[in-house]
Amino acid sequence: MLVGLKVNAQQDLVKYVRPIIGTQKMGHTFPGATVPFGAVQLSPETDTLSYEFNGKYNGDVYKYCAGYKYEDKNIVGFSHTHFSGTGHSDLGDFLIMPTQGKLQLNPGTSNDTKSGYRSAYSHANEIVEAGYYKVKLDDDNITAELTATTRVGMHQYTFPKSYDSHIILDLMAGIYNYDDKNVWTYVRVVNDTLVTGYRQTNGWARTRTVYFAMTFSKPFKSYGQKNYDEDQVYRGFWRKFDQNKNFPEIAGKRIRMYFDFKTDEQEKVKIKFALSPVSQANAVENMKAEAPGWDFNKVKQQAQSDWNKELNKIKIDASADDKTNFYTAMYHAFINPTTYTDVNGEYKGLDQNVHNADGFTNYTTFSLWDTYRALHPFFNIMQPSRNNDVVKSMMAHYEQSALKMLPIWSHYANDNWCMSGYHSVSVLADAIIKGVYDGDATKALEACITTANHRNYEGIGDYIDLGYIPAERSGTSVSNTLEYAYDDWCIAQIARKLGKQSIYEKFLKRSGNWVNNYDKSIGFMRPKMADGTFKKDFDAMSTHAQGFIEGNTWNYSFFVPHDPNGMIAQMGGKKKVELRLDSLYTMHLPDKFFADTEDITRDGIIGGYVHGNEPAHHVAYLYNWIDQPWKTQQRVRMILKMQYKATPDGLGGNDDCGQMSAWYIFSSLGFYPVSPGSDEYSLGSPSIKSAQLTLENGKTFTVEALNQSDKNVFVSKVLLNGQPVTKYTIKHGDIMNGGKLTFYMTAKPKNK
Amino acid sequence: MLVGLKVNAQQDLVKYVRPIIGTQKMGHTFPGATVPFGAVQLSPETDTLSYEFNGKYNGDVYKYCAGYKYEDKNIVGFSHTHFSGTGHSDLGDFLIMPTQGKLQLNPGTSNDTKSGYRSAYSHANEIVEAGYYKVKLDDDNITAELTATTRVGMHQYTFPKSYDSHIILDLMAGIYNYDDKNVWTYVRVVNDTLVTGYRQTNGWARTRTVYFAMTFSKPFKSYGQKNYDEDQVYRGFWRKFDQNKNFPEIAGKRIRMYFDFKTDEQEKVKIKFALSPVSQANAVENMKAEAPGWDFNKVKQQAQSDWNKELNKIKIDASADDKTNFYTAMYHAFINPTTYTDVNGEYKGLDQNVHNADGFTNYTTFSLWDTYRALHPFFNIMQPSRNNDVVKSMMAHYEQSALKMLPIWSHYANDNWCMSGYHSVSVLADAIIKGVYDGDATKALEACITTANHRNYEGIGDYIDLGYIPAERSGTSVSNTLEYAYDDWCIAQIARKLGKQSIYEKFLKRSGNWVNNYDKSIGFMRPKMADGTFKKDFDAMSTHAQGFIEGNTWNYSFFVPHDPNGMIAQMGGKKKVELRLDSLYTMHLPDKFFADTEDITRDGIIGGYVHGNEPAHHVAYLYNWIDQPWKTQQRVRMILKMQYKATPDGLGGNDDCGQMSAWYIFSSLGFYPVSPGSDEYSLGSPSIKSAQLTLENGKTFTVEALNQSDKNVFVSKVLLNGQPVTKYTIKHGDIMNGGKLTFYMTAKPKNK
Repeated sequence: MLVGLKVNAQQDLVKYVRPIIGTQKMGHTFPGATVPFGAVQLSPETDTLSYEFNGKYNGDVYKYCAGYKYEDKNIVGFSHTHFSGTGHSDLGDFLIMPTQGKLQLNPGTSNDTKSGYRSAYSHANEIVEAGYYKVKLDDDNITAELTATTRVGMHQYTFPKSYDSHIILDLMAGIYNYDDKNVWTYVRVVNDTLVTGYRQTNGWARTRTVYFAMTFSKPFKSYGQKNYDEDQVYRGFWRKFDQNKNFPEIAGKRIRMYFDFKTDEQEKVKIKFALSPVSQANAVENMKAEAPGWDFNKVKQQAQSDWNKELNKIKIDASADDKTNFYTAMYHAFINPTTYTDVNGEYKGLDQNVHNADGFTNYTTFSLWDTYRALHPFFNIMQPSRNNDVVKSMMAHYEQSALKMLPIWSHYANDNWCMSGYHSVSVLADAIIKGVYDGDATKALEACITTANHRNYEGIGDYIDLGYIPAERSGTSVSNTLEYAYDDWCIAQIARKLGKQSIYEKFLKRSGNWVNNYDKSIGFMRPKMADGTFKKDFDAMSTHAQGFIEGNTWNYSFFVPHDPNGMIAQMGGKKKVELRLDSLYTMHLPDKFFADTEDITRDGIIGGYVHGNEPAHHVAYLYNWIDQPWKTQQRVRMILKMQYKATPDGLGGNDDCGQMSAWYIFSSLGFYPVSPGSDEYSLGSPSIKSAQLTLENGKTFTVEALNQSDKNVFVSKVLLNGQPVTKYTIKHGDIMNGGKLTFYMTAKPKNK
Repeated sequence: MLVGLKVNAQQDLVKYVRPIIGTQKMGHTFPGATVPFGAVQLSPETDTLSYEFNGKYNGDVYKYCAGYKYEDKNIVGFSHTHFSGTGHSDLGDFLIMPTQGKLQLNPGTSNDTKSGYRSAYSHANEIVEAGYYKVKLDDDNITAELTATTRVGMHQYTFPKSYDSHIILDLMAGIYNYDDKNVWTYVRVVNDTLVTGYRQTNGWARTRTVYFAMTFSKPFKSYGQKNYDEDQVYRGFWRKFDQNKNFPEIAGKRIRMYFDFKTDEQEKVKIKFALSPVSQANAVENMKAEAPGWDFNKVKQQAQSDWNKELNKIKIDASADDKTNFYTAMYHAFINPTTYTDVNGEYKGLDQNVHNADGFTNYTTFSLWDTYRALHPFFNIMQPSRNNDVVKSMMAHYEQSALKMLPIWSHYANDNWCMSGYHSVSVLADAIIKGVYDGDATKALEACITTANHRNYEGIGDYIDLGYIPAERSGTSVSNTLEYAYDDWCIAQIARKLGKQSIYEKFLKRSGNWVNNYDKSIGFMRPKMADGTFKKDFDAMSTHAQGFIEGNTWNYSFFVPHDPNGMIAQMGGKKKVELRLDSLYTMHLPDKFFADTEDITRDGIIGGYVHGNEPAHHVAYLYNWIDQPWKTQQRVRMILKMQYKATPDGLGGNDDCGQMSAWYIFSSLGFYPVSPGSDEYSLGSPSIKSAQLTLENGKTFTVEALNQSDKNVFVSKVLLNGQPVTKYTIKHGDIMNGGKLTFYMTAKPKNK
């Protein structure tokens, strides 16, 4: 009996999470503190270039997407918003840095940290946990600790004895602050412990404002600012005050502030820093609601308890390293999308008006080109309520869109239109097909159709008229056509479910457009000219302006997730496809490939298969369609091993808001959603020994992999609730009804 | 009986209003359309310098305070917000210009209007009325008409037949857009008739955002924008659209938009343009509530009816010119403060949060250094409800102020801290003493005290410690001390009324500080050094960095409005003061004076008396204190004649949000509030024949001037309700109780 109870009891799974994974090389994850789907990601910045304003910031747009690189030797401060794993950058709002001694308002340089507020640190003095980050700042002998609630970041700084301790609030700082991204900042020092304000930026999000409320655990003795703006004629009147010192109403484009304290030896000065998309008043309300007290450990324990609750939804039996990878993947999968609603239900809409989220939580940070593939399908199993709200957030976005488009890649009440396709429709279709969306599906279908018919968006007009996008008119003509075709199939699925036959047929027809870019003569997808001929100069290896984005035709030619059989037929049958798939995983790539390709290193590649970018994420499962499931099993296990390591450099490519991690979770459990919008999962080879999925509906789905080992990667038999599974697939309902999926593992491929 | 009825019937007084008065030379009034205390002031811009963005705008900060100068030969467009009569500039939001033919998005130059959207016009084709403005734009043969509601500007453009008619919305334009005042603009084209957005500026108001909703009477056929911003790295993604043409989600710092129409001969295209301090959504709501239809004439009639209602509060019998001056003064007095609340009660507070005005209308545009003198006292007679709300708005400002200060010079949720003193306390005191303020007077007193004890604001610390401000530390040390002393007396009056004896005594003592700057040896107020000696180099004529602002010691030495008798005693008695007053009005000023003095021309000066600036506005009434009331009578009538003419150049100085006009109204009625905060008015010489003041409390106060004429400027006898008035004063209660004040006019001074 006791044993049985133990299985259902909450385990301490936070100990397996290593947020440091992915902070080196291309993972672009951040090591700081956040709670599941939190609005705050409080994390250190290590950008080695000076933050000093000099008209231009010469930083690397990619390298510091998450603000922190493991290889850097010093920390410039701790800011409150971060993307997790993206391939482009923004955020880094409200940089806080504790110092003592002479006040230095400039950050200083990486080579000479003593020249500014920046500080050296060492990984030996760093603790990185889910919901908790700690580091010793060597320059001033200050220990920094960070934790968070959904909307509040909490800092705890342990100072030495000093009459001149400072907390710096750098409002000029930001991630990739190229071209002076700041539009405006405003700060109001309400009293000697409370400060509120906002920061407005023009970056990847074109029009973004984040409001804050910041409170100190003890009153500062004095404070001040430096305004780096150019002078202007009206300032004469402002000189009636000394506005640089103890002046509480501050505004400008380029501002750094400081707050002075006297500290005793080992005295802890704490800060609570709340965010809001709507107003300072809401930020204050968020703070009161979520973090009323000053017990740092209590907030930390709550954050870790929140993580534990989410992590316990899947309990696995696996090796220690696999557990670390698995629960770190769970952690990374549950960071995005991020909460974009205040505790009172208000949020800023795409139309820049304030809205009330009636009956749902509004979310943002939709890296959809990535996350439609496995993250949202994963949510439809493990976070259906949340994914329901995600769809509602997308529908709100659509309703607020003057363009009348669903989100492409959206964050903080903006769309940045990054990457190809209109993959919101995949998220909507998957949620509707799987019964997760409880809103108006007819409206959702209408939103999908309107989006898909937006003729002046990235070649859609040509796509509708010609069935493909002429190569003359777009550098990403083929990937767009392929992705639109898949998306159209998703729309058709919704229409079918709703019994809208003519819409179903129309979009099913459009979903066949992929074939228009397939060149039988070479056996590859290939850019096609307006006159119907294929583009002459064509290098199948190239990822550069050859019709594809973040991938070459070797990878993209397999991108027909909704119709692998049709693709196989076009390619000349199963044998030819097997050869092509084998070549993909075993080919040798020239160095030139890496020089030309964004966001990827040799780490993210197996042969010519690019796991570090997303377009081929389903490819290993295609062997199931050509009756070579043992190759799927082998490839999947190889990818799991090679592309996911429990080390800072353990991710072979950008985690992309959890997509890389969601791939890991699915694949390690033994199944994968090759074509979201379908209710089928394709079977692979589980890397866990067993897993127990506790579903929101109260049911339990168990995966067992008998005789599991690093050598026993092949599947000899699969039973679902004791009945043989013969088609390499299971249905969504099979999971959601609860039950047991048993893989019989062996060292010998079954059908070799 | 019929005659009796006629007296009480509403008269057409709008016909006497000439908004063009003050648009030439230094009046700084605007000719466009507004309603009483409206949020919208829709008026033409004639700035002769190019609006083209070139990094710097080299315009004149003073000349174009109101956007329009009568002497200019062309119009650049029509914008929605204007100050009336200020001596510094801001606003000019949302410039609209109709054109036809080839689209030109640059404004062009004054010398060559055909080079841009600017157009020539002539005063012969201009109609300027209260609430209505009409002009023919010669370049493109378009007639423009403007009218307004409180929060909505309405445009009516009569086009010729053209396939290429355009409405330009220039979001870069603004009044005195020095140093690129724009911080950010956002525009959302909701559909083919509705556009919303906002403009955010960093100008005289440091952090100002105005939201708008704009709707057209007929759908545009196409639209577009030009963005003059520098490129930035993220824009690559935005190029998925052609964002310059028919793209509905627009944001940037420097944007010009256009909307294209096909027009028939004489076709009218109308625009309704609503403003909000809070949000686009509120702007839409304001538009729906105030201007639901498209009948331009109906809106115009309502605007003029609104004006008539306000103007009819005082009916006068006077010469045609005097009626024009009087009702134009009424008009100018009732433009400011401006409404700063949406129809739903929301407004943006000084803390940049959205607040709900519970039970009052929130107002802004407080040019208090000017308006405390006569405008707010005038409101306490004729607009007590509104002035009650003005005080509530000031108290809300105080409560939202991190500085804990009442407004100094505030507009649009900002304080610009312009000019000397803390004259809000005068407005509060006058409203409390006169029983107009129905809020918590104890809180109001607390706000006054906190403001007056703000040690680090413009010498207050020194003033408190030393009783004056050392000349070394301020260029306006004397005017500040004098004005603080008066303000302190106001605070004392509130304290006395509330029975707070110790506060009363403390501030009454402070109100005597004026004496510390009086140098008996020369008989003038004079800057004093920290060591207690008077400043050596001192030129009594100078207005420049000699301790005074907008005035010299000849004018400022009389600035003890709360204690003329004390001042007279210091100055050596009545005879000496009479000589000094006479000299002031008759002296000859050197040309150098005009070169050194801001905001003034010879037109604004009589002898050395500067009526065009405010500090001496009470001075003509001081003769009453030295038993020479006939000289008050003579001077007042002279000032009324010389400083107020019914012509575009008719104002001798800035109207200053109605203070110059309020002086006119009081003085032409025969009494003036020398020391607001007291319940007494000092009598002068009425220039009307009779006047009937219809009070909010239902009572009527009548002023009669028997035998009134240009020659009969002297008062031989005054009766109040038949009883002789002997002390040259009447009480506020005498007016508010209703009754009749009868002046017996004569050509011979009574006590000469």
